[in-house]
Amino acid sequence: MNYRRELHRYPEAAWCEFFTTSRIAAHLAHLKYQLAYSDEIIHNDAIMGRNPDQIQKAQERALHWGADPQSLERMNGVTGIGAVLDTGIPGPVIAFRFDIDAVEVMESHDDSHRPHFLGFSSLLDGVAHACGHDAHVAIGLGLAEVLAENRGHLTGKFKLLFQPAEEGCRAGKAIAESGWLDDVDYLFASHIGMNVPSGTLVCNPQHFLCSSKFDLHFNGKPAHAGIEPNVGRNALAAACTAVNQMLAIPRHRDGMTRVNVGQLMSGEGRNVIPENAVLKGETRGENRELNTYMYQQVEQIAHASAMMHGVNVEIKAQGEAIGLQNDSALVDLLFQVGEDSGFNNVIKKKDFGASEDAGYLVDRVQQCGGRAVYCLVGSDLTAGHHNGDFDIDETRMLPAVKLYINVLTQLI
Amino acid sequence: MNYRRELHRYPEAAWCEFFTTSRIAAHLAHLKYQLAYSDEIIHNDAIMGRNPDQIQKAQERALHWGADPQSLERMNGVTGIGAVLDTGIPGPVIAFRFDIDAVEVMESHDDSHRPHFLGFSSLLDGVAHACGHDAHVAIGLGLAEVLAENRGHLTGKFKLLFQPAEEGCRAGKAIAESGWLDDVDYLFASHIGMNVPSGTLVCNPQHFLCSSKFDLHFNGKPAHAGIEPNVGRNALAAACTAVNQMLAIPRHRDGMTRVNVGQLMSGEGRNVIPENAVLKGETRGENRELNTYMYQQVEQIAHASAMMHGVNVEIKAQGEAIGLQNDSALVDLLFQVGEDSGFNNVIKKKDFGASEDAGYLVDRVQQCGGRAVYCLVGSDLTAGHHNGDFDIDETRMLPAVKLYINVLTQLI
Amino acid sequence: MNYRRELHRYPEAAWCEFFTTSRIAAHLAHLKYQLAYSDEIIHNDAIMGRNPDQIQKAQERALHWGADPQSLERMNGVTGIGAVLDTGIPGPVIAFRFDIDAVEVMESHDDSHRPHFLGFSSLLDGVAHACGHDAHVAIGLGLAEVLAENRGHLTGKFKLLFQPAEEGCRAGKAIAESGWLDDVDYLFASHIGMNVPSGTLVCNPQHFLCSSKFDLHFNGKPAHAGIEPNVGRNALAAACTAVNQMLAIPRHRDGMTRVNVGQLMSGEGRNVIPENAVLKGETRGENRELNTYMYQQVEQIAHASAMMHGVNVEIKAQGEAIGLQNDSALVDLLFQVGEDSGFNNVIKKKDFGASEDAGYLVDRVQQCGGRAVYCLVGSDLTAGHHNGDFDIDETRMLPAVKLYINVLTQLI
Amino acid sequence: MNYRRELHRYPEAAWCEFFTTSRIAAHLAHLKYQLAYSDEIIHNDAIMGRNPDQIQKAQERALHWGADPQSLERMNGVTGIGAVLDTGIPGPVIAFRFDIDAVEVMESHDDSHRPHFLGFSSLLDGVAHACGHDAHVAIGLGLAEVLAENRGHLTGKFKLLFQPAEEGCRAGKAIAESGWLDDVDYLFASHIGMNVPSGTLVCNPQHFLCSSKFDLHFNGKPAHAGIEPNVGRNALAAACTAVNQMLAIPRHRDGMTRVNVGQLMSGEGRNVIPENAVLKGETRGENRELNTYMYQQVEQIAHASAMMHGVNVEIKAQGEAIGLQNDSALVDLLFQVGEDSGFNNVIKKKDFGASEDAGYLVDRVQQCGGRAVYCLVGSDLTAGHHNGDFDIDETRMLPAVKLYINVLTQLI
Repeated sequence: MNYRRELHRYPEAAWCEFFTTSRIAAHLAHLKYQLAYSDEIIHNDAIMGRNPDQIQKAQERALHWGADPQSLERMNGVTGIGAVLDTGIPGPVIAFRFDIDAVEVMESHDDSHRPHFLGFSSLLDGVAHACGHDAHVAIGLGLAEVLAENRGHLTGKFKLLFQPAEEGCRAGKAIAESGWLDDVDYLFASHIGMNVPSGTLVCNPQHFLCSSKFDLHFNGKPAHAGIEPNVGRNALAAACTAVNQMLAIPRHRDGMTRVNVGQLMSGEGRNVIPENAVLKGETRGENRELNTYMYQQVEQIAHASAMMHGVNVEIKAQGEAIGLQNDSALVDLLFQVGEDSGFNNVIKKKDFGASEDAGYLVDRVQQCGGRAVYCLVGSDLTAGHHNGDFDIDETRMLPAVKLYINVLTQLI
Repeated sequence: MNYRRELHRYPEAAWCEFFTTSRIAAHLAHLKYQLAYSDEIIHNDAIMGRNPDQIQKAQERALHWGADPQSLERMNGVTGIGAVLDTGIPGPVIAFRFDIDAVEVMESHDDSHRPHFLGFSSLLDGVAHACGHDAHVAIGLGLAEVLAENRGHLTGKFKLLFQPAEEGCRAGKAIAESGWLDDVDYLFASHIGMNVPSGTLVCNPQHFLCSSKFDLHFNGKPAHAGIEPNVGRNALAAACTAVNQMLAIPRHRDGMTRVNVGQLMSGEGRNVIPENAVLKGETRGENRELNTYMYQQVEQIAHASAMMHGVNVEIKAQGEAIGLQNDSALVDLLFQVGEDSGFNNVIKKKDFGASEDAGYLVDRVQQCGGRAVYCLVGSDLTAGHHNGDFDIDETRMLPAVKLYINVLTQLI
Repeated sequence: MNYRRELHRYPEAAWCEFFTTSRIAAHLAHLKYQLAYSDEIIHNDAIMGRNPDQIQKAQERALHWGADPQSLERMNGVTGIGAVLDTGIPGPVIAFRFDIDAVEVMESHDDSHRPHFLGFSSLLDGVAHACGHDAHVAIGLGLAEVLAENRGHLTGKFKLLFQPAEEGCRAGKAIAESGWLDDVDYLFASHIGMNVPSGTLVCNPQHFLCSSKFDLHFNGKPAHAGIEPNVGRNALAAACTAVNQMLAIPRHRDGMTRVNVGQLMSGEGRNVIPENAVLKGETRGENRELNTYMYQQVEQIAHASAMMHGVNVEIKAQGEAIGLQNDSALVDLLFQVGEDSGFNNVIKKKDFGASEDAGYLVDRVQQCGGRAVYCLVGSDLTAGHHNGDFDIDETRMLPAVKLYINVLTQLI
Repeated sequence: MNYRRELHRYPEAAWCEFFTTSRIAAHLAHLKYQLAYSDEIIHNDAIMGRNPDQIQKAQERALHWGADPQSLERMNGVTGIGAVLDTGIPGPVIAFRFDIDAVEVMESHDDSHRPHFLGFSSLLDGVAHACGHDAHVAIGLGLAEVLAENRGHLTGKFKLLFQPAEEGCRAGKAIAESGWLDDVDYLFASHIGMNVPSGTLVCNPQHFLCSSKFDLHFNGKPAHAGIEPNVGRNALAAACTAVNQMLAIPRHRDGMTRVNVGQLMSGEGRNVIPENAVLKGETRGENRELNTYMYQQVEQIAHASAMMHGVNVEIKAQGEAIGLQNDSALVDLLFQVGEDSGFNNVIKKKDFGASEDAGYLVDRVQQCGGRAVYCLVGSDLTAGHHNGDFDIDETRMLPAVKLYINVLTQLI
């Protein structure tokens, strides 16, 4: 609980978690874990949605908040950390994953908002732990302590992954491709809240959506709109064409698809033909084929819209989520130990209906012959995820730790 | 006048003038002119807007109306005729051009419409000489008679061009490229009516617009719109995108431009994603550069619209008009002899504001070192050009013949 | 079988079934049924998709083919017929519905196409019984004979509905609203073929789509595109705007939706701003709310597109299909007697995945307290429905009649 | 020159000229002019393009720079000043107008840029006197001095208008409607530079464009793009529709028209259907009717686009320029005295080809029976107007003062 409240004050958005990573590293080092940083756990070429302009500022802020400079050096600009506890005794490799980033939302200053009332609310305007990842870190560190204390009684190897940039599904692919999880026999991941009430454990959430996040950068040529309208290459016209055409991508026979353009910024002056336009969009599909169909249409439309108006376009991938299929044996295992871990309502199926970056990790472990599961740890919420009034039921963190302990005792 | 009334009954649209050509040929052969047909006067590769499906039907109708089979054979499917009177005595080559095609409009059946009342109205529903080209042929044949009668008094060579497919500017380029006019020293052409009243001669009409006529054929892939909407390639969606984008081609700094899509036909069944779409459009510009700018934009939009929706597009040129610059010496000559030819109001400048296929012929002659002029022969009209009630003042044909006689007596 | 082959030669499209109705009426009159015509069975105000221009021609053709003039007079321009056999003895009212219209498709002239080879193919180019409604009529007349022959052994009342204009879902609503089925206790309807093989009976097809068919008529103002482009009101531009926007109606949270524009015709001349545009479209939804959502969006888009370009728009409903929910008791009854009726494979569920005009009739009967069911009678096909090579397995008509006989013996 | 260099350091953008106004007021008060502020010279309801958010900050900065608090109080938030010198002796009312605002452009820090080199460059990053209005103020104050010194020799009344917010044509209409100029017999205005070289006076510039500046604010309803796409009301889709349709406003028969959307900002998050969109645009026309035609089309498109997507739209006028017709008698007067005033090349016509807020003032005076003229005072420039390297030839200010003196001596 202390871990959670501490981190809640220092929220850092995706790829900016320098202070968070530093603090986690300090705790884990103290517990004698071996630590893996940067390209040991993250494949650089597969990083998505990382804005280089924010990195330096985030590092400076982290140092200002008291981050360890040596730790920052080891990060080499890339946040997140992997921790290994190797018992030296033969046995399975068991991994647990915790995501650590905050979201860009302004935290409430109402007295009814407990973090504010108790004085542990965000120190950074416009960024807040409004998705519960602070609790995920706390669960991870709690588990790390228990494992370290019981080191002598354990077999095999334990890996704790503190993942950056889950929001926007920007890091999962890069972590999977780093190969750090390739020797894992069992992978566990979970999320707190998600419309599941306190006391309930969902062992096998369903219908994870596939999604692609992308930015389109149109680049044309400015011209005075009154004096020589034919000379310009109108980036805004191209972007608007793209928006309207993307919304018209045909529905697909095989199921649910989605497309959205959430932002568009273009232009300098009222009387200048816009030289640049940037739009931020996403596609979704109820399976990988459907999302691929949507994304390929977006690519086609982007290029055709640029051609239409004689401008250039660059498509920049900003994140990607694939589906997630739980391992049925692990689902059964969770189901079996749930009640003993402190959950009074253990169920199997529930619609997830959103995207999770863990999909890449689960898929990678399964591709390498391991088993993996992602579950939901119920918690009453004061407001929906990503809302400024969001707060969790902190008493639900302990059962999550117990659940993992109970599970691993079954596996070693 | 008889020539005009005879031809008025047998109107034939562009590239279908088989009966008209046959009748003209018969008269000219009788007058001992040497005749040039088909690829002697028309370069096949530069023909535009000729619909092969209509040709056979037009030939059959011409034969049914009494066209000469041998004449049709010499046409080899391509209408129009060139006639040469060579005096054998050194002197300039003087050419006159008369266009012969009718337009696709339903002629009026009102008693107030003289051709109907006097019984010489169109025998072919939906086609009529509503632009006065029947009068042009009559003027040409009248001139041919006078030249033939006075053969002994003349020097040099005379060329009479009876041009097909002036409407839509579909033949001018092909005739120019045949080279038949390359030895011409003086070329004369004229149009009757054109908002110029009876008795007036306009020696130097201004502002001939450049224009390109085109069809876009989009070809996609049909699919059941309910069962598999993602399988189709929507030709109609591509065509609609093209229409809206063409209307948005930026205005041009340097002057007047125009674009229009006049027709769009697409689709088979209500519940089928349209496989095909055909649109008929045109661009204009107040000079050749401006029209080229517009047409290049159309090409870009056509290709981008096709790419946008994954369909194919074919751009079919259907006609083209370039500007027309009269020779000032010939303008002066017309101005000088106008009054003696029976015109009571001889003026130089008047805005033309439309397109003329003669532009190609005038340009060719000038490129080859000759002089050329295009003038307007006034005639009160009963209704505007291309209107079913259109009729000319037939008394204005004779002054046109006289004008040409007076002009050539100055030149030989 | 003879009935089917006779009618196969005289296919008539929706609302044109004058000969078909006349022949059916003659047979039924001979069997002493009471006949109901025109507004006795069809509520005029609810008729959709009837083109008045085709009616007179269809009537003349029907007379030419040998239709009974008196019968035509009773139709008063509206096809279809209702037949009643009232035993006079108390008992349930049992109704059967047979649709009678052909589709606008060119029938194959291949020798491999049996109707052609055996000489009973369509006498009307471009129209054919390529959906099996001719077999439906034959089944209906076969049933009518059996009932008439056994009149003395029956109780209650029997109603046979020979429905026009099923294609495009144009008559169901009007028949329902006439009230002719309001006293019905049991309604049976069926379709032959539909991807169900010979010998199979599907008692409870699922997932009938809701759909709305509509035409949009845009009416603007023509103008010469070169001379005064600002004066026109461009109906084609409005239609193209509407097409692209309709394809972009947002997907719906609650399930499958569809939209299509299957045809667009617009414009007169290449250089005239189009005065008129007509587009033919449809919406679908997996339930009534979803289709209503789509259709309301279409209406909004139609009006906004017209406003955008300063033109008028008229939205003309052309057909409508609602869902269809079978009565479970009647499904059980069909399931029970299927095998004895000559079906070797009797199943309950199968996806229908299309629209059926019978939905309105089933709904009306159920609203009035009766029970209704729609089933599929298997038949191997030579080609898909609405294909020129379509032909049924004629031996499957008899089991359909037997099925209805067996069912009604259970109900009276 | 000193006035100019002083003001050059304190550039203030449109409606923010608090320091500038205060300084001008101080000089004029010292010269015993009667001063008119705020709604005495500016009709509040006709103010355009004034951003209330910038006002307070601009006032604070002005105070910080040393503006007179009492003067600010009299401004009551609205900049600009009118000064009157009434001789008390009967005679004409002669007015001169000087615009005082700077433009939002970053001034050059190159040593080759004289204001930087000599140390009088802009003290406010991003705002600069890069259009020469600082020179206009200096000319105005120089004239004010001469008049005051010669008060005893003058007759009639003199009005000096120091106009705010000329850039974007935001104040002219409001000043005209205040009525402050209604008693003026002669109005003079001028601009320095404008591609006219040092030593040249253009007495009658031609072709002032009419223009309307506007912002469109679309307001819809956000929704999660993945979970409930049908619930949102997409403001960005509406804005994009509006952009593409505005670019497709038909060209006009009667002459040059323009339209541009120079900026579009919309949306919050990638996965949220955009609730808001703001676009900044402008129309132009070579006369008032043509600009009105364009602007009415914009209004129609804005409303139709909003309707199309079920959102609201607000159209906010941000500026407007009408044409400007010089009085021929005053043109002749300028032409006559030009040479004596120090111009070595006095010409009448030159194309202006842009917009001027003075149009409203000239029009108002002419409507009230007075005469008005707007001329161009040549000055070699170091770079084009609105460029960070822009600088004038300061020696050209004195001839402008002399010109006005010479003119008024002819009029009183």
